Amino acid sequence: MKKGITKRSEDFSRWYTDVIIGARLADYSPVKGCMVIRPNGYSLWEKMQSYLDKMFKETGHENAYFPLLIPESFLEKEAEHVEGFAPECAVVTHGGGKKLEEPLVIRPTSETIIWAMFKKWIMSYRDLPLLINQWCNVLRWEMRTRLFLRTTEFLWQEGHTAHATAEEAEEETLRMLNVYQTFAQDYAAIPVLSGRKSDREKFAGALHTYTIEALMQDGKALQAGTSHNLGQNFAKAFDVTFQDQHGKQQLVYATSWGMSTRMIGALIMTHGDDQGLVLPPRLAPLQVVFIPIFKGKEGHGEILSYIEKIAASLDGEISYRVDAREEYTPGWKFNEWEQAGVPIRIEAGPRDLQRGQVVAVRRDTGEKINLPEDSVKDKVREVLDEIQTLLYRRALGFREENTTKVNDYGTFQEVVSGQGGFIYAHWCGDPECEDQIKQETMATIRCIPLESEVDRGVCVRCGNQSDERVYFAKAY
Amino acid sequence: MKKGITKRSEDFSRWYTDVIIGARLADYSPVKGCMVIRPNGYSLWEKMQSYLDKMFKETGHENAYFPLLIPESFLEKEAEHVEGFAPECAVVTHGGGKKLEEPLVIRPTSETIIWAMFKKWIMSYRDLPLLINQWCNVLRWEMRTRLFLRTTEFLWQEGHTAHATAEEAEEETLRMLNVYQTFAQDYAAIPVLSGRKSDREKFAGALHTYTIEALMQDGKALQAGTSHNLGQNFAKAFDVTFQDQHGKQQLVYATSWGMSTRMIGALIMTHGDDQGLVLPPRLAPLQVVFIPIFKGKEGHGEILSYIEKIAASLDGEISYRVDAREEYTPGWKFNEWEQAGVPIRIEAGPRDLQRGQVVAVRRDTGEKINLPEDSVKDKVREVLDEIQTLLYRRALGFREENTTKVNDYGTFQEVVSGQGGFIYAHWCGDPECEDQIKQETMATIRCIPLESEVDRGVCVRCGNQSDERVYFAKAY
Repeated sequence: MKKGITKRSEDFSRWYTDVIIGARLADYSPVKGCMVIRPNGYSLWEKMQSYLDKMFKETGHENAYFPLLIPESFLEKEAEHVEGFAPECAVVTHGGGKKLEEPLVIRPTSETIIWAMFKKWIMSYRDLPLLINQWCNVLRWEMRTRLFLRTTEFLWQEGHTAHATAEEAEEETLRMLNVYQTFAQDYAAIPVLSGRKSDREKFAGALHTYTIEALMQDGKALQAGTSHNLGQNFAKAFDVTFQDQHGKQQLVYATSWGMSTRMIGALIMTHGDDQGLVLPPRLAPLQVVFIPIFKGKEGHGEILSYIEKIAASLDGEISYRVDAREEYTPGWKFNEWEQAGVPIRIEAGPRDLQRGQVVAVRRDTGEKINLPEDSVKDKVREVLDEIQTLLYRRALGFREENTTKVNDYGTFQEVVSGQGGFIYAHWCGDPECEDQIKQETMATIRCIPLESEVDRGVCVRCGNQSDERVYFAKAY
Repeated sequence: MKKGITKRSEDFSRWYTDVIIGARLADYSPVKGCMVIRPNGYSLWEKMQSYLDKMFKETGHENAYFPLLIPESFLEKEAEHVEGFAPECAVVTHGGGKKLEEPLVIRPTSETIIWAMFKKWIMSYRDLPLLINQWCNVLRWEMRTRLFLRTTEFLWQEGHTAHATAEEAEEETLRMLNVYQTFAQDYAAIPVLSGRKSDREKFAGALHTYTIEALMQDGKALQAGTSHNLGQNFAKAFDVTFQDQHGKQQLVYATSWGMSTRMIGALIMTHGDDQGLVLPPRLAPLQVVFIPIFKGKEGHGEILSYIEKIAASLDGEISYRVDAREEYTPGWKFNEWEQAGVPIRIEAGPRDLQRGQVVAVRRDTGEKINLPEDSVKDKVREVLDEIQTLLYRRALGFREENTTKVNDYGTFQEVVSGQGGFIYAHWCGDPECEDQIKQETMATIRCIPLESEVDRGVCVRCGNQSDERVYFAKAY
């Protein structure tokens, strides 16, 4: 039997690691800060990629690939950008046995190398909008790493677009934020708050950053995707202009947006339980696992062919696997597939065969359901939909229970250090207050809602007048 | 109008670059030796990936992801491996603003980091075979680079498998060689010779290497995919053993195999013509382009909706696009899509509308075919199949015309420096002869056929006895 999983209530952080190792999603590598994504984790990433990629293409984007290595001088062309990223860079100083004339950094993000190319490709208004996406690896040197959440190397997609007007760029930024929100909610079953980042928390080089924020079961927030309106900052840095319809040269407007393998961490900490991973059916690489229950040494073949006939009826629409391994007991297999988060387990033994039924067990609730053999496909489809919906509702309920409207700093401090979760409180807009709150409570502004009700009050920290509330939380 | 494409007969190498730039497959980047893969090139790579990935999964492989950075000391654990790859490595010496204790190299290939992980994962015979594939970027410092064919960074897949016996490893090596051959011939329409590499030409660290070799239109060979039987070399280097069924510890056997974006170069140089790229329909991201022929200023809407109705009938099975841009002339568009290699162009003007037909133009032959509007889908499907077949046959015919059986060194030298192509000649098996031939003619042994007829003769270089012929050629 495998080593058990630490209980969430005991040590959430160890629980998280246990789930990942137990479900064989990832493993520690011998390279400091870098992880290995194992097949179970990678197939989850492939599922995420397939849905996101489809949504990117439906909104007019094309994939491309830009170099991994970026000359150090490129980074320096945008002042805020270099300040934000240079300290996190891995630097290549030697290549082919020789010292390089100019060091190259491994991309921490690709704005600079991409805008160097956009300068070659954008001449006239006819070349706009230019809508590019890249799936790739990036590197940011991290001191304290955690599997999926914060690793030196990670996989992501980064969208980079160029537009003729400020309005189009803003529209694009919000369109992609919306794609992320749809993906998080409809596929990952993760409810998210969307909104704008404060200036302190925005992307280095952006005019402003939008974000989707999810709440984990330990009461900490997790930034799950960001979309940046870069204004003309990178066009200025790389001198990218276009001739407009009237023959005038104009600076181009930019956006960028990204979602990463971090989303796998969000998935684990939103839905997982003390038995391990719980996957929303739409993202589960394997939706149903069939396990034959053999009694004694006889009749294995009969049960197996009964199961295989039923399993085959799911084909094409529902992904499944028949776990016929003889060297493991059913109990061992139950545990393994539970840890791996497979949404539905279907068992059948000699008695089920006699009755012409199978027994389905839901991973989310543990509920057992007897299914007549001729209705398995319809019923499984139905239950998969129910699981998807329940996971979302459960997570939404948790977030609602853990979002607190707060009007004074005493309560603010109490909630942060106690229950945690999102705190919806007034903020005057002054970065000084924001910094003090962060220093005193470790809570940061997660987002400023896009459409907040007008709600006059006073800043929770300084008492100055405020017109809107923002969401605070401790965060990953 | 765009700048024309250099003729192949004039300057094959410039023709190659012109085709890539004209079809917007790739572009030079400001980073030495690295290229940018533009959307037209990347979508071609995505097509290749989708077919290969399917074949890998059908043969039981799972995708995973391993770190980009490898400690220098890992490379050194396998003597031949480090000798082959260390000189080509890019080295990271600084990270997060500090000098690293041990330099890290950017993976030139991942055997070492993967076998360090396999050591953690392989305990018993139950863990074998372990069948892993990785899609990623790799870096090999190159002095002289060419778009797609030889760039410092490139994209590829690398399969890495572990087996209990030497026989299984050899079977796997040949299975994957066969997958590559099937892909090259059935999808890329590129005929290939398959066989074993000589010891001089094998992968650094392999027991032996198998290869598929294609012939380009300039008479040079191109290695299009390789599959390596690594024996127990990496298991020894990383001390990877397993407990067999009898409780004994045994060293594990390994294979690795890879195909890269280089295949795009092979595609261009196999099928391209003086008008630009020619894509085999099964790999063409866009199979059909519709171009409305507007006469005068009237009736544009009518023609466009006629075309769009017909185009919509292709949906789901055949990829298409309607190029309705008003700012370009039909002639400009013809040229653009011809350069881009789209297999079929379909035009329709006012007269076609009256007659209830469209005109299809084949990219491979230039043939024009009138299609009645109600049979477009069936006919297009048929023509796409014909193009796929013709491209393969044409390339096979070319290879046959350019494969010469040679028995003496004078003729050998003449053919190499004249017509080029494959030379099928006796070789005694001595690496000394191989080296001398390379020095004197620049031709290398491309492969030793897997099943060659017994054909007694004498080595084309030294006159010693030989039992089989091998394929020589100058190569990319």
